[in-house]
Amino acid sequence: MTLNVGVIGTGMIGQDHIRRLTHALSGARVAAVADTDLERAKSAADQAPGARVHHSGLDLVADENIDAVVVCSWGPAHPEPVLACVAAGKPVFCEKPLATTEEACGQIVDAEAAAGRRLVTVGFMRRYDAGYRAMRHALSRGEIGAPLIMHSAHRNASVPGRLTSEMIVVDTCAHDVDVARWLLDAEVAAAQVLTPRRNRRAAGHLQDPLIMLLEMSTGALVDIEVLINSGYGYDIRGEVVGETGTVELAETAAVVVKRDGEFRGRVPADWRERFARAYDAELQDWIDAVSAGTATGPSSWDGYAATVATGAGVQALHSGTRVEVSMRRRPDLYRRTAAAAGPAV
Amino acid sequence: MTLNVGVIGTGMIGQDHIRRLTHALSGARVAAVADTDLERAKSAADQAPGARVHHSGLDLVADENIDAVVVCSWGPAHPEPVLACVAAGKPVFCEKPLATTEEACGQIVDAEAAAGRRLVTVGFMRRYDAGYRAMRHALSRGEIGAPLIMHSAHRNASVPGRLTSEMIVVDTCAHDVDVARWLLDAEVAAAQVLTPRRNRRAAGHLQDPLIMLLEMSTGALVDIEVLINSGYGYDIRGEVVGETGTVELAETAAVVVKRDGEFRGRVPADWRERFARAYDAELQDWIDAVSAGTATGPSSWDGYAATVATGAGVQALHSGTRVEVSMRRRPDLYRRTAAAAGPAV
Amino acid sequence: MTLNVGVIGTGMIGQDHIRRLTHALSGARVAAVADTDLERAKSAADQAPGARVHHSGLDLVADENIDAVVVCSWGPAHPEPVLACVAAGKPVFCEKPLATTEEACGQIVDAEAAAGRRLVTVGFMRRYDAGYRAMRHALSRGEIGAPLIMHSAHRNASVPGRLTSEMIVVDTCAHDVDVARWLLDAEVAAAQVLTPRRNRRAAGHLQDPLIMLLEMSTGALVDIEVLINSGYGYDIRGEVVGETGTVELAETAAVVVKRDGEFRGRVPADWRERFARAYDAELQDWIDAVSAGTATGPSSWDGYAATVATGAGVQALHSGTRVEVSMRRRPDLYRRTAAAAGPAV
Amino acid sequence: MTLNVGVIGTGMIGQDHIRRLTHALSGARVAAVADTDLERAKSAADQAPGARVHHSGLDLVADENIDAVVVCSWGPAHPEPVLACVAAGKPVFCEKPLATTEEACGQIVDAEAAAGRRLVTVGFMRRYDAGYRAMRHALSRGEIGAPLIMHSAHRNASVPGRLTSEMIVVDTCAHDVDVARWLLDAEVAAAQVLTPRRNRRAAGHLQDPLIMLLEMSTGALVDIEVLINSGYGYDIRGEVVGETGTVELAETAAVVVKRDGEFRGRVPADWRERFARAYDAELQDWIDAVSAGTATGPSSWDGYAATVATGAGVQALHSGTRVEVSMRRRPDLYRRTAAAAGPAV
Repeated sequence: MTLNVGVIGTGMIGQDHIRRLTHALSGARVAAVADTDLERAKSAADQAPGARVHHSGLDLVADENIDAVVVCSWGPAHPEPVLACVAAGKPVFCEKPLATTEEACGQIVDAEAAAGRRLVTVGFMRRYDAGYRAMRHALSRGEIGAPLIMHSAHRNASVPGRLTSEMIVVDTCAHDVDVARWLLDAEVAAAQVLTPRRNRRAAGHLQDPLIMLLEMSTGALVDIEVLINSGYGYDIRGEVVGETGTVELAETAAVVVKRDGEFRGRVPADWRERFARAYDAELQDWIDAVSAGTATGPSSWDGYAATVATGAGVQALHSGTRVEVSMRRRPDLYRRTAAAAGPAV
Repeated sequence: MTLNVGVIGTGMIGQDHIRRLTHALSGARVAAVADTDLERAKSAADQAPGARVHHSGLDLVADENIDAVVVCSWGPAHPEPVLACVAAGKPVFCEKPLATTEEACGQIVDAEAAAGRRLVTVGFMRRYDAGYRAMRHALSRGEIGAPLIMHSAHRNASVPGRLTSEMIVVDTCAHDVDVARWLLDAEVAAAQVLTPRRNRRAAGHLQDPLIMLLEMSTGALVDIEVLINSGYGYDIRGEVVGETGTVELAETAAVVVKRDGEFRGRVPADWRERFARAYDAELQDWIDAVSAGTATGPSSWDGYAATVATGAGVQALHSGTRVEVSMRRRPDLYRRTAAAAGPAV
Repeated sequence: MTLNVGVIGTGMIGQDHIRRLTHALSGARVAAVADTDLERAKSAADQAPGARVHHSGLDLVADENIDAVVVCSWGPAHPEPVLACVAAGKPVFCEKPLATTEEACGQIVDAEAAAGRRLVTVGFMRRYDAGYRAMRHALSRGEIGAPLIMHSAHRNASVPGRLTSEMIVVDTCAHDVDVARWLLDAEVAAAQVLTPRRNRRAAGHLQDPLIMLLEMSTGALVDIEVLINSGYGYDIRGEVVGETGTVELAETAAVVVKRDGEFRGRVPADWRERFARAYDAELQDWIDAVSAGTATGPSSWDGYAATVATGAGVQALHSGTRVEVSMRRRPDLYRRTAAAAGPAV
Repeated sequence: MTLNVGVIGTGMIGQDHIRRLTHALSGARVAAVADTDLERAKSAADQAPGARVHHSGLDLVADENIDAVVVCSWGPAHPEPVLACVAAGKPVFCEKPLATTEEACGQIVDAEAAAGRRLVTVGFMRRYDAGYRAMRHALSRGEIGAPLIMHSAHRNASVPGRLTSEMIVVDTCAHDVDVARWLLDAEVAAAQVLTPRRNRRAAGHLQDPLIMLLEMSTGALVDIEVLINSGYGYDIRGEVVGETGTVELAETAAVVVKRDGEFRGRVPADWRERFARAYDAELQDWIDAVSAGTATGPSSWDGYAATVATGAGVQALHSGTRVEVSMRRRPDLYRRTAAAAGPAV
């Protein structure tokens, strides 16, 4: 009855998912872990009573005791275990990105389409955030008419110094790209990147802030402001402008304090604080679906589409021009269904 | 065509009205001033080109060059010039309180009723505040059904040390009493005063904060929190709870700043900042009405009713018990009319 | 490793806790249920694979397979199984009220104090709400100085017709009483009930709305507006006024929609929507503490204090006067500790 | 002592200024009007007691009884009377645009610079709005560090059918361009226009919505969303993102109503409601400055800069590409001074 989950990659996010599966969610246990760093794997296994340690992700996938797999290794290492899961017919939850290249993503899409059933779920947790879900609910009820424009802002208080401008487009914008596709029910047709005045608090030659513009297949336009060194907090904003109204994320502060001449409310400190419940809901939904023999959440196709769009974004960053996005045909397996959108709001 | 206004009392509020009549509003000029402190009167007259200085309020009222009078002296000195204006048939705008005793207020009501037309307007400026006007608008449109409860909070950042607990009930609560009568369209039937834990920042034996409870003639209940040493700003709050909904004053900050982990908005520093536009609108409305030969704004009856209610409040503060309010019959002159409520929202 | 929990009482809230323990939380399973209505018990057991059905709560407590007990029967039936748990040394989570009379509550307190360790947790879930936790956090950090006044409003969209005015004081206000004690770190010293104009939408002779006033042992004053037929939604409001500032619950809407001339945000429909996460957090915290061999959450003393205070409220409702609250001495076992406040914010 | 003002152009905005000068503001009177439509001029003069009617704007400027002039005719007719005022040494308040072409604007700038003193004020009233003033105040106090990005949204509920896409860029965006220059203290260096999916509620081939992008001389980036058929109201939004924080316009609703499951606040219906007080403040500031023999408010240079930038916007709309803005050297007369920013906040 309890789902035996194997976790590949035991870095920060891997450890967090192990804690979640062990102490916060219902219906699953961590039965095995794997990491190229064996010591780290052993240390992570200590947090999950009874978990075995495998020397490689492929060993873990092959472990017949494992019902389903969570992939939390770094991006370039995602395709190997994901493809192995598809081949083995085991459900796999893969942290974003699905893969770092269009080719690798396409290979996964092809394999899954050939298998004829959805086995892969990609970790775009924003689809499980109460705010984005309420936005989608308002859109699907027609409260604001057809969407014309989406404004997005993605602001971190600060980030490690190693980040490059390309990583901002690929890793940071990926979430905004996915949520735009999901909310607007459209694919990205073209991308452009604008480079405003640099924040002097940004390291080296980092282009911070930047604005990524997306033209969607419906003609809707998306502007994504990314500010990596906002200084003041982790602030995620979103607004969709429709033909008869708008819907936007509300502030998340639980209380308002008045003192010293001002009213004040908290801005989240980081993504963990902002999206803690979305991560829980995402993985619980996956456990429930896998246990029930169904699929849920963002698909391989969503992972493919995000990687293609952010790839175009990198080209646009380098060229300074508008770059058209060219995608393969969407296999029938990924025709959007209610199930693909996650649990009902 | 320009209204010649005489101003009696040239203290802080008198000077403010002189500035307002001279530099901000349309259709009037300050043609004379009077003050028991002659030097202060002369100094105030210097701010209003061409203004004469009278030695007494009665002289000013008698000045045939004066069309209408504004009374800004201290409370106990209000009845004399107001009654003189009524006798002379001159419109008079009297700062609150109309008078400090029920008897003196009643004398003015009687005199005006005998004269058969409204000449007296009392300075309850909150009726001209955009927030309270919108509350009344929502109530009169039936947006929330019949009013059942009103919550009011009246918070000053700090006040001069000479204030007494009785003055809090009489002077501070007077505004909340008037606005409750106006919004709920009812008289005060009984009052009670609750005495919470004292703020250690309050001077001497001042009862700060206190809560004044009003039972209205309709059965609606009003609680008024007064906090004289809030420390954080001048914060005026109001909410009416009706049978199907509520309406409350919104925050007044013009912008929201995000920094240091918080979003922040300004709370007004004092009553001048909070009600600047209400004071302007109140006096402009009076100028316009007087120039058109009509009456407007809070009446003698409103002044009478507020003084009676706050008088019961002082009794309740002393006795610690509920005190019933006994009022004279309302003369027909004061049947509520649209004009009495000030200009349309 | 998994905690075997028995659930006594399988009505609405009991079924909800069974679902929660089975499908949402980690570390526990429902191993047995009991209900005076055996059919309902069987039906509930069907939702929890492997759960046994007992014919009485005492049988369930005596079941040696059961590690800990959740009591969800109706109030008068609470003391019997709670006392049995204390006698058996088994941790018990009892929905509020702990008991319906001061005597019964006192008996539980005495028994637990005699046992020398905390075994009873009472279901005041608001202490696990993000909003109230943030209020307490602000208070404990001294952000607004010592608390002087608390304003509370408890509004239901509507309620079943059988409700009496006494039940409003006892059942509805109990939550506000508990959270006031917790936030203000004080006991209730006296109570008074005010009866505003009745809502014509309220059934029969129900006193809706009413205002319950609490004088706390510190002198702080609490006013609790209860509006059972608000018409517009389930709206829980709270504000603490301190010596240098205030802290209040923020609106909970996840998005703001603009259309038809207005911006709009959702008010929760009912307590389930408003406090869903608090119920989850409360029970997970209890599971974690019981599994770790410790105690957590509101204690027997908190249950006793709430019942005493609401009992005084009923007397005050009937008499129309202020009623002093007389409490027994607090046993040393209930000296407030960090653990008593639940998990860290 | 009273300023004799002549008003040229008695259409909608002209009539509004006549009402304002006659009934709302202090220190001025409308002493003459002129309009190419003589009947309309006479009708407008009837609203201002004692006002003469001139057959042409030049006659009005030449009227020795006129101290200062307000120009409210249509854009192409602005330069003639403005230049006549400069030649005559009479202060002139010109509604935006100063002129419709760069050449005409430049001619005015040259004439005024040659005259050696500021006589021309341009009607960019947003600089007098409480919200924008508070934004500027926060920026000038360094509350958010150096500005990097500005987001602007300009939404009308609906507009007359004759509007063209070019007019959206020229007339609508002009306000956003001016306020961006003022807040960011920078000139526009380049413009681009993005064309999202069209609102089916927009007439004919109107490009509604559109997004105008401005690159400022400091490198800061401005995106201006213009939505002419928002359907829901007149919604003006602005946010400046700085190196350490952000500042944005707050909602303007005076009250919040709760009913039918939602909290709700009013969005202004049109520009008159939104900016009523800004129009008053703007013209009062001009009257005060002219009466004191000084200059105030947006200058000829500001009018020139806005016309040049919106001209580049039209080119960008037609070409679909980024268009660089080329401006003449700014005469010393227009070095930014405190006076140029209007009255102190």
